[in-house]
Amino acid sequence: MPPAQDVHARAPSRGRLRLLSVGLTGIRKPLSVQREGRANNLAVTFRVAVDLPSDRKGSDLSRNAEILAEIVDETATRPVESLETACSSIVRELLVRHPYATEASVEASAEYFLRKGVSEPKRSFEDYTLLAEARGTRTEDGSVEVRRAVGAEAVGMTACPCAMETCRELLTKEYPLLADPQFESLPMISHNQRNRTRLIFELDGETSVEVDEVIAAVEAAQSSPTYAILKRGDEAQVVLDAHRHPKFVEDVVRDLLASLPERFPTASDATTVRASTVSEESIHKYNVEASHRISLGELRRSSGR
Amino acid sequence: MPPAQDVHARAPSRGRLRLLSVGLTGIRKPLSVQREGRANNLAVTFRVAVDLPSDRKGSDLSRNAEILAEIVDETATRPVESLETACSSIVRELLVRHPYATEASVEASAEYFLRKGVSEPKRSFEDYTLLAEARGTRTEDGSVEVRRAVGAEAVGMTACPCAMETCRELLTKEYPLLADPQFESLPMISHNQRNRTRLIFELDGETSVEVDEVIAAVEAAQSSPTYAILKRGDEAQVVLDAHRHPKFVEDVVRDLLASLPERFPTASDATTVRASTVSEESIHKYNVEASHRISLGELRRSSGR
Amino acid sequence: MPPAQDVHARAPSRGRLRLLSVGLTGIRKPLSVQREGRANNLAVTFRVAVDLPSDRKGSDLSRNAEILAEIVDETATRPVESLETACSSIVRELLVRHPYATEASVEASAEYFLRKGVSEPKRSFEDYTLLAEARGTRTEDGSVEVRRAVGAEAVGMTACPCAMETCRELLTKEYPLLADPQFESLPMISHNQRNRTRLIFELDGETSVEVDEVIAAVEAAQSSPTYAILKRGDEAQVVLDAHRHPKFVEDVVRDLLASLPERFPTASDATTVRASTVSEESIHKYNVEASHRISLGELRRSSGR
Amino acid sequence: MPPAQDVHARAPSRGRLRLLSVGLTGIRKPLSVQREGRANNLAVTFRVAVDLPSDRKGSDLSRNAEILAEIVDETATRPVESLETACSSIVRELLVRHPYATEASVEASAEYFLRKGVSEPKRSFEDYTLLAEARGTRTEDGSVEVRRAVGAEAVGMTACPCAMETCRELLTKEYPLLADPQFESLPMISHNQRNRTRLIFELDGETSVEVDEVIAAVEAAQSSPTYAILKRGDEAQVVLDAHRHPKFVEDVVRDLLASLPERFPTASDATTVRASTVSEESIHKYNVEASHRISLGELRRSSGR
Repeated sequence: MPPAQDVHARAPSRGRLRLLSVGLTGIRKPLSVQREGRANNLAVTFRVAVDLPSDRKGSDLSRNAEILAEIVDETATRPVESLETACSSIVRELLVRHPYATEASVEASAEYFLRKGVSEPKRSFEDYTLLAEARGTRTEDGSVEVRRAVGAEAVGMTACPCAMETCRELLTKEYPLLADPQFESLPMISHNQRNRTRLIFELDGETSVEVDEVIAAVEAAQSSPTYAILKRGDEAQVVLDAHRHPKFVEDVVRDLLASLPERFPTASDATTVRASTVSEESIHKYNVEASHRISLGELRRSSGR
Repeated sequence: MPPAQDVHARAPSRGRLRLLSVGLTGIRKPLSVQREGRANNLAVTFRVAVDLPSDRKGSDLSRNAEILAEIVDETATRPVESLETACSSIVRELLVRHPYATEASVEASAEYFLRKGVSEPKRSFEDYTLLAEARGTRTEDGSVEVRRAVGAEAVGMTACPCAMETCRELLTKEYPLLADPQFESLPMISHNQRNRTRLIFELDGETSVEVDEVIAAVEAAQSSPTYAILKRGDEAQVVLDAHRHPKFVEDVVRDLLASLPERFPTASDATTVRASTVSEESIHKYNVEASHRISLGELRRSSGR
Repeated sequence: MPPAQDVHARAPSRGRLRLLSVGLTGIRKPLSVQREGRANNLAVTFRVAVDLPSDRKGSDLSRNAEILAEIVDETATRPVESLETACSSIVRELLVRHPYATEASVEASAEYFLRKGVSEPKRSFEDYTLLAEARGTRTEDGSVEVRRAVGAEAVGMTACPCAMETCRELLTKEYPLLADPQFESLPMISHNQRNRTRLIFELDGETSVEVDEVIAAVEAAQSSPTYAILKRGDEAQVVLDAHRHPKFVEDVVRDLLASLPERFPTASDATTVRASTVSEESIHKYNVEASHRISLGELRRSSGR
Repeated sequence: MPPAQDVHARAPSRGRLRLLSVGLTGIRKPLSVQREGRANNLAVTFRVAVDLPSDRKGSDLSRNAEILAEIVDETATRPVESLETACSSIVRELLVRHPYATEASVEASAEYFLRKGVSEPKRSFEDYTLLAEARGTRTEDGSVEVRRAVGAEAVGMTACPCAMETCRELLTKEYPLLADPQFESLPMISHNQRNRTRLIFELDGETSVEVDEVIAAVEAAQSSPTYAILKRGDEAQVVLDAHRHPKFVEDVVRDLLASLPERFPTASDATTVRASTVSEESIHKYNVEASHRISLGELRRSSGR
């Protein structure tokens, strides 16, 4: 029997269609990232895929696993600059080793720990999610264009501004003195809850964005960040801060977007941002959410209004 | 070739051990349950298992799937009385069709909808989880003893009693008039959050327990139940109720257990209850939980103290 | 204190941006659907959202919960025709009760049971997932245009065509007689695994698609459907069928798409379909996946090639 | 207003019951573990809890978060020996800082990467799960007794021995030559699938168990381990190995347990092991599972039979 042609390289038996995406999903890899002078070890979930021309039965999927292994192994001795840098390298290599492909994509998410707290002795590791994407396109002259995205998700807290007002009305009937102007600024009971907010930058050209600043932007837009260690008085302070900054999910997204022009002054107008937030409502069994997508240019113009 | 002996019935090749449990898990089935005169359709996740003697290679797992199919199909025309009744029937049939087994177990969970609301026009379906278990043992005389368990989980809300006090202290510094006795009962801001509480009765003999009453007991022990439809004023009322009944997870479990002697007067002293609760803290990224297991007899004696 | 203006209706404090989407997610509701003359009870997970103009602080989210309650309650006495019909009604009502919104969307998924089996006595309920979407746009003349999508996901089995060939090569070295032409069609060992495939029709105008036919299309494109009850010989037959139809994820998507022109002859050329499949590889810890999106018109033209 | 007594330290308002367990769950922390001369960074999910006496309203939960922070921070500069060592330290500290508690428990799970492959150039990181537990009891003389458990879960592959035989029967009818004795050892098609197996040692006294050896034991008991990188011929070899070692879930548990006396010769007879396995069946939509719990002493005696 002569050596068989690789099954993947044959013509498809039926349905001769180009496919938009064929790849691996849910593959876990450890990745060393250089952060402020020291290696930070991330456990990353990757999704990697390329397109497939109509005349080919299968994609060489083992190459995807090899690329991930090589790039990941390399970081054990030479940590990579960032998760999105790793994604860019992978997407370029995908188009080298799948010569039949014209598009490649990589999506990555990883848990990320930062030491935070209400004060130095109460600092401890808080967990966040890093997000990165890279999409490569083989152009007509054979070169590869890569678009990158980078972002993060943070869990914080929201307190509802509407219930706060209706509770004030309700309680003022019972405690008429609450109508006194001195109590106008007294924060009232409301419902508050765990909130998950993510912000992703679709980067323009070589622009880069610092993920710690992305996380800071998200936490500033929630009613309050949350912390692992809160002693008696700290807890009261966090609750008070949250109720002094009551937010609908709509407010979280708008305040987050409105803060970006100042926080990311060097990011170009062509940079597009995606913001989304979910509040796991304490008074309902379901969640509420809000999302938006807009360019920094539009944001800058609208903030001038 | 002579007809082969069934592979399962052979001797194990290695490791001649009795096994405690072999079965199916994650099998989904629709089940019709008779509730207050009408059929209620549950989508149930079953786990069914039997033990395996040391001289047998495998358990006849296809029989488990057949039993589930027969009992479930039967309910399409003749709805069963309750989820735990179905579990009991299944466990008995498991011991009939696995003659080599001496123990059988069934665990079932199903989503369950009840129409609830702050008032009639705002009633809508709220989702709960039903839980049922049955364990059968073949006794020496060949008869089968079945122990049953039944329970439910409800999502509600907890408000923290500790943060409420520390917030009062903090705010009283800023608004000294709050120290006035008239404000002693004014509910203060606190953190509040989604809470999941479950209560399971390990039934004694033929005792039965009404799941709607189990759900009512759980919701009464949380700071407040939660609802799908809350208009302006309703939301304030739910928030106020929750802050008038601030609860640690410890309080939820204790209050729930303390309510049982009165709520379930006909359940025997030998009935054992398991209570557990999880608060998805709004001020932390992690959850807090509490749990206990105790007999109704002990509860009755301790409540007399 | 005069009655306060509703907080949601005020101007946003900061970030005066229109938001693309604000809504509820993860809300569970029971829905009665009329299927072949009898009511079928689905437990549906809904996501419902509308856009929000730049001059409004918040969306009236309680209206979303009210709409769901009304439409769902209505089906208890008058079952709705299909899940996508319910989605269309909801999306229209969202634009009525959110007069400030110009776009609305509903996404729904529900578990769905069909009685299937290798033969009549071995039929039992198999579980599938129904999927439906509706998106409404308020046009300039005030009317509402609704685009609907409907689909399903089925779990089946794939056997790898590549490993089957390489195993044949490997085994032929050990058993040279396997090279004999009489064994050319003998199915060889391979890796096979659980596969999840979904097909969604983005409907054109009033076209409708029968979900049972969608499920049939998906199962026909996998190496084999899977069943709850398989006795000794049935199991062998399913395994043999799967190995007689070995499929890459690429084959599953292409074969599925290629079958649609014949299976759905009345669906218009403008109907677009999305197909995606995931194989939970038995030889890897990760999954492989393939996906495509194409119009029926393009499919019809390409199948003519 | 005099400084309030801490709310937790007060008497419970209702339901004066000791509670078996109160604590934190789902708390994530990075932990540095010393492995073969280098630090290995684990992202750990902890559950930590203590009991609560009947005269105390609440547990000082912030102390749990502080303990975790201190022990975890310490490992950043001085990596701990193992995950179970960290659990033991935490459980001891829980009983120091909760002087009212008599029992404490810690459960930890973490993803763990090992470089493996069919050959050196194809090695890459495979992901496993580490599991550790520690339970401390304050004895009457005030000292603390700690029982530890350690284990791991590995994802591998199982091929069904029964379908292999029934397929042989079915195919022999079609290819009568297969009845020839030369084909007796020819592996036949079967269903094969992803399998998750875990093994946990409830350690006796100071015994320790090497987790890499636990993982090796699990992978040896499955039909085959699985790998990220498999080129053409490797894939065939893994498939062939799996079909040369067909296993029911019952076989996986028994073979695993039977291998322990030889693999862990220094573990004492009083060590108890828990083994459980789940096969995500390719021919069914549900899973099958088997589990057992037995002491090494019993295993040693039964293997002498």
